[in-house]
Amino acid sequence: MQISNYIQQSFQVNYAYRVFFSDHIFEPTNTQLAAWLREQASPHYRKRLLVVADDGVWQSHPYLQAQVSAYFQAVKEVELAPEIIVIPGGEACKNDEALFFRLVDAIDKYAIDRHSFVIGIGGGSVLDLVGFAAAVSHRGVRHIRIPTTVLSQNDSGVGVKNGINFKGKKNFLGAFAPPAAVFNDAHFLTTLDARDWRAGMVEAVKVALIKDAAFFEWMEGAATALAARDMDAMQKLVFRCAELHMQHIGGGGDPFESGSSRPLDFGHWSAHKLEQLTNFSLRHGEAVSIGIALDSVYANLIGWLDKPSMERILHLLQQMGLPLYHPLLDMQAGATSPVIKGLEEFREHLGGRLTICLLKAIGQGAEINDMDVTLLQQAGDILKQLTVVSQ
Amino acid sequence: MQISNYIQQSFQVNYAYRVFFSDHIFEPTNTQLAAWLREQASPHYRKRLLVVADDGVWQSHPYLQAQVSAYFQAVKEVELAPEIIVIPGGEACKNDEALFFRLVDAIDKYAIDRHSFVIGIGGGSVLDLVGFAAAVSHRGVRHIRIPTTVLSQNDSGVGVKNGINFKGKKNFLGAFAPPAAVFNDAHFLTTLDARDWRAGMVEAVKVALIKDAAFFEWMEGAATALAARDMDAMQKLVFRCAELHMQHIGGGGDPFESGSSRPLDFGHWSAHKLEQLTNFSLRHGEAVSIGIALDSVYANLIGWLDKPSMERILHLLQQMGLPLYHPLLDMQAGATSPVIKGLEEFREHLGGRLTICLLKAIGQGAEINDMDVTLLQQAGDILKQLTVVSQ
Ligand SMILES: NC(=O)c1ccc[n+]([C@@H]2O[C@H](COP(=O)([O-])OP(=O)(O)OC[C@H]3O[C@@H](n4cnc5c(N)ncnc54)[C@H](O)[C@@H]3O)[C@@H](O)[C@H]2O)c1
Ligand SMILES: NC(=O)c1ccc[n+]([C@@H]2O[C@H](COP(=O)([O-])OP(=O)(O)OC[C@H]3O[C@@H](n4cnc5c(N)ncnc54)[C@H](O)[C@@H]3O)[C@@H](O)[C@H]2O)c1
Ligand SMILES: [Zn+2]
Ligand SMILES: [Zn+2]
Repeated sequence: MQISNYIQQSFQVNYAYRVFFSDHIFEPTNTQLAAWLREQASPHYRKRLLVVADDGVWQSHPYLQAQVSAYFQAVKEVELAPEIIVIPGGEACKNDEALFFRLVDAIDKYAIDRHSFVIGIGGGSVLDLVGFAAAVSHRGVRHIRIPTTVLSQNDSGVGVKNGINFKGKKNFLGAFAPPAAVFNDAHFLTTLDARDWRAGMVEAVKVALIKDAAFFEWMEGAATALAARDMDAMQKLVFRCAELHMQHIGGGGDPFESGSSRPLDFGHWSAHKLEQLTNFSLRHGEAVSIGIALDSVYANLIGWLDKPSMERILHLLQQMGLPLYHPLLDMQAGATSPVIKGLEEFREHLGGRLTICLLKAIGQGAEINDMDVTLLQQAGDILKQLTVVSQ
Repeated sequence: MQISNYIQQSFQVNYAYRVFFSDHIFEPTNTQLAAWLREQASPHYRKRLLVVADDGVWQSHPYLQAQVSAYFQAVKEVELAPEIIVIPGGEACKNDEALFFRLVDAIDKYAIDRHSFVIGIGGGSVLDLVGFAAAVSHRGVRHIRIPTTVLSQNDSGVGVKNGINFKGKKNFLGAFAPPAAVFNDAHFLTTLDARDWRAGMVEAVKVALIKDAAFFEWMEGAATALAARDMDAMQKLVFRCAELHMQHIGGGGDPFESGSSRPLDFGHWSAHKLEQLTNFSLRHGEAVSIGIALDSVYANLIGWLDKPSMERILHLLQQMGLPLYHPLLDMQAGATSPVIKGLEEFREHLGGRLTICLLKAIGQGAEINDMDVTLLQQAGDILKQLTVVSQ
């Protein structure tokens, strides 16, 4: 028998899922979800379903408890677990280790195996937690996402990441685990509070700025309607934003982020720091709006982005009711803003070399490996002036 | 702007890794691991290493603590964490939730990011735990496996699964996460106790039986040497067994086990039940040996496997010092053996329909969807008689 120095392993894994768009998905006459479940049915096996819901959604839509049970019970090809698990919504659920283990327990108790489904209904926080609990149970139970916020319908819920916080470290524990399917129901968005409605739109601005000038122009035209909670405009925004995110993930060559290029994190380096420094009193989207503003002014200062484009960006964010500035951008006692100081931490986090996406033009992001702290502070000061003047 | 009913996502993820074969890998003159690490080096970044070791290995090879540190410190392209974490080996480490969190904490504390490596040194249990902690930290830190038992060098350590037990449920929490690389050091095997040495060989018998008659014949010829702990024979066995497992995982079309076909689980349905019923006092390999014996006699009873082939299988297992029978195979108070009763549970676990690999001939496995409990009991009785007679 021959032996050699090493054996080379290599293989591919294929992933595929659909993101559906509809509304009132649990009304008996809406067959989209039921039809999908029937397509998954196996002749030898009745798949089981475990539903985990966001209490914020359950409170805003009290009819859901009965409607959801009735809907799934009517699909004879599947078997709904006897309990719908309702958990607190919002970031807090991602900090709660006991809640994670409660979900794992329920997956065990209700015999949700690798042929069955866990269904998360809620905002990005609940979906991140539910997706992670499913991803590690039985080495990967499939999960279906039903996102209920703008952010989760157009960004977090249509992608491949899941996770929870660990000892205050955001998303420290998590997995890349694509959903089995996603069902975006526009009706849920009607009950969002004003800040969540607005904050979710910023991911559309972000992805338009780096990839799709036409979409940006469309948002300029629709800005007033969007700010006034026009549902038709919002559904279009959600659709195109989800599509651009999905195209990047599926077509960008690095769906599970093994490299260090992250164009979808445009505007995010300072946003993450702002969220942290404000103890998450800023919504993610609000922080990203400020981050986009900062990096757009910076791009203009280094000669990448022309001034009219920069002004269009700031104007669109303002029309959407999103902030451009926060006092943490100011110099503190003569020293650089603590947000801008975060750049150094971010550089270390990346392992010594920055890879940041900045704008060459509207619709055209490009990578840069260095940013000048003095110029960044200048950008922060410009935003302060603009905001003070406009108030 | 156009919107439609759904967006289709689909993409592939490529995985590749090497399994190296060598011995005394941490001696300064052995450059295999150092060279591999240098190949991974990045011009912008010094990758960090966190080593987690099995105390059973550390006790049998007390020079390792100093040797391992010196070895990695000599590789200037990487930075070894200031602490080598030594944890209890064996199944117990997979039951210890606190130990899991200790590893996650260490990954955080020593800033092991997605460009760095966690290195597990130990038996299959330690590697399963370490691999899982790495797989879920930062949504996937890369891990290197240095397996130190026959079983982990020829089967568990060269594959893609990781996991821990949860509330006594074996491998309930886990992930499919291929290693960055595997380094099989034959020297470790010299200190295994007799049961671990023998038990690990059964996976080679298993995979030969379903895929490679020539390998089976080779083991027949080498059986005496293998039982007498001949290292040259063992290295060949480990190599070919690892290769066959890897070929199945990489070339079988379902590396992350989304379907229900599991030929590599030949002989395992009853083995899992036996392990559980004996409270894991049987080694995994010992239980699988009995499982293979049972399913081989059964295959003969249903006319799949001829009698001489069946006898060769039982003979080889016996020559390797492995058991063919356990009293739990007996009828209990006139009722079917509790092990054989486990078939019904296994059927339920699979969702109502059995998919079991049985032998048509030596080197040729095939799937069956039904097994007859009365005939299985008869197979158990035959094994009892054989064993009593041969004693
Ligand atoms: N996985 C990813 O790729 C990814 C990407 C971006 C953000 N995220 C995560 O998403 C989370 C933020 O998600 P989010 O912005 O959706 O907010 P959220 O999930 O934190 O929810 C905010 C609040 O809205 C409530 N709510 C949800 N839907 C509602 C509805 N239809 N009507 C009324 N109230 C409703 C919730 O109960 C909660 O109180 C963060 O944890 C962030 O890390 C994940
Ligand atoms: N991930 C997979 O695909 C997969 C496949 C099969 C089995 N497994 C798992 O592997 C585990 C069993 O692994 P194992 O058989 O390697 O045993 P083990 O890891 O449980 O180790 C058995 C004992 O040997 C000691 N030991 C390890 N190496 C030694 C050495 N070189 N010298 C002396 N003592 C040493 C350990 O400290 C321990 O006490 C089980 O938990 C099983 O579930 C995983
Ligand atoms: Zn974002
Ligand atoms: Zn096995």
